[in-house]
Amino acid sequence: MNVYRYEENPLITPIDVKPHHDNYEVIGAFNAGITKYNDEIIMLLRVAERPIIEDVNIVKAPIYNPQTNELDILEFRSDDPTYDFSDPRVIRVAGDKEGFKYLTSLSYLRIARSKDGHQFTVDEKPFVYPSNELETFGIEDPRITKIDDTYYIYFSAVSPVGVGESMVSTKDFVTTEHHGMIFAPENKDVLIFPEKINGKYYAIHRPVPKSVGMPEMWIAESTNLL
Amino acid sequence: MNVYRYEENPLITPIDVKPHHDNYEVIGAFNAGITKYNDEIIMLLRVAERPIIEDVNIVKAPIYNPQTNELDILEFRSDDPTYDFSDPRVIRVAGDKEGFKYLTSLSYLRIARSKDGHQFTVDEKPFVYPSNELETFGIEDPRITKIDDTYYIYFSAVSPVGVGESMVSTKDFVTTEHHGMIFAPENKDVLIFPEKINGKYYAIHRPVPKSVGMPEMWIAESTNLL
Repeated sequence: MNVYRYEENPLITPIDVKPHHDNYEVIGAFNAGITKYNDEIIMLLRVAERPIIEDVNIVKAPIYNPQTNELDILEFRSDDPTYDFSDPRVIRVAGDKEGFKYLTSLSYLRIARSKDGHQFTVDEKPFVYPSNELETFGIEDPRITKIDDTYYIYFSAVSPVGVGESMVSTKDFVTTEHHGMIFAPENKDVLIFPEKINGKYYAIHRPVPKSVGMPEMWIAESTNLL
Repeated sequence: MNVYRYEENPLITPIDVKPHHDNYEVIGAFNAGITKYNDEIIMLLRVAERPIIEDVNIVKAPIYNPQTNELDILEFRSDDPTYDFSDPRVIRVAGDKEGFKYLTSLSYLRIARSKDGHQFTVDEKPFVYPSNELETFGIEDPRITKIDDTYYIYFSAVSPVGVGESMVSTKDFVTTEHHGMIFAPENKDVLIFPEKINGKYYAIHRPVPKSVGMPEMWIAESTNLL
């Protein structure tokens, strides 16, 4: 079988996505989860937005505030020696080459819908948006597994305490039920198998150890998906 | 209530523990899990053994080999600039201040028994010994939770792929059933609650994230202890 890159790519670009936040710009629409719901192809996008840059000497970090349900914005001078701003996606503590302290954009999940798998229309509003202390730096990189009539949506939840994998479920792509964090930090890149094997659910996941070892793919089993 | 340090401390020292391996010495008998079984106090020790040092210019790393069920020994010259030997417990890659590449001792779990909680007799043989690829650098820091008539014993499993928490169970402190890894790397310091809460098992655990966040205590729930 030969596989060719689709010539109408990219299907969706940041220009196709209207910012959800006033005075923000969409800098990424990517790393989507895909499924079919009724007669539609659902592309669940990771959308990354950042505050519009007005002064290049100021670096901003948007942070979800669970008390107000709004975004707070931290501001840093780009010549502040405490921090390393060399990677535009993150703010690092100076000298820390691997980790990060803040993100310069906030991601959430938004639905793009299509009848033919080619032409997508992006919903006006987010579908899954940060909602708790484990998601203050945003939610990223969704994957979707349909089991029976339920769609399980799981994604990286990012906050100052770490990057873990959290899960919601939906039956209609309108309302969601939250199931909390299913893999503790540091873990991401989860994929839940759509069928049980010998009576158990299985998932691949990628823990990121610190003291010894590299990020590698592991397999996990569960009797209840949690 | 006043609490006083017991004057006969320490209860057990490395001198009380005969090495399990020929040409090894016991350098640690510590970080024990404690429980009662019939009329005995069971102290499940972490015992750390290292190859006896014959040449101070050679640093050795004992590694469990799951194929042979024996320990292999890696040897390094102490002036090898590739590595940092400044912490005698670990061998680091030079320049890596936080992680480690090898350990200079191998730990396993061994039972000390007592009728009165004061005088302990150490078993001749290990009770839980490394047995698979996730335990090639040893097993450490056991904790014990009794639920019904089963004792669940969980401990840090250390290998080149990371430090995670694995579990065995026993009903008689003679035979064990292995349940595999219950918290993926990097995680340790698990404590399972001895009673269900609202129909679920609970554990505290300490994931160690890499990119962002510090090692912190988390709580996990489970319907099946796994």
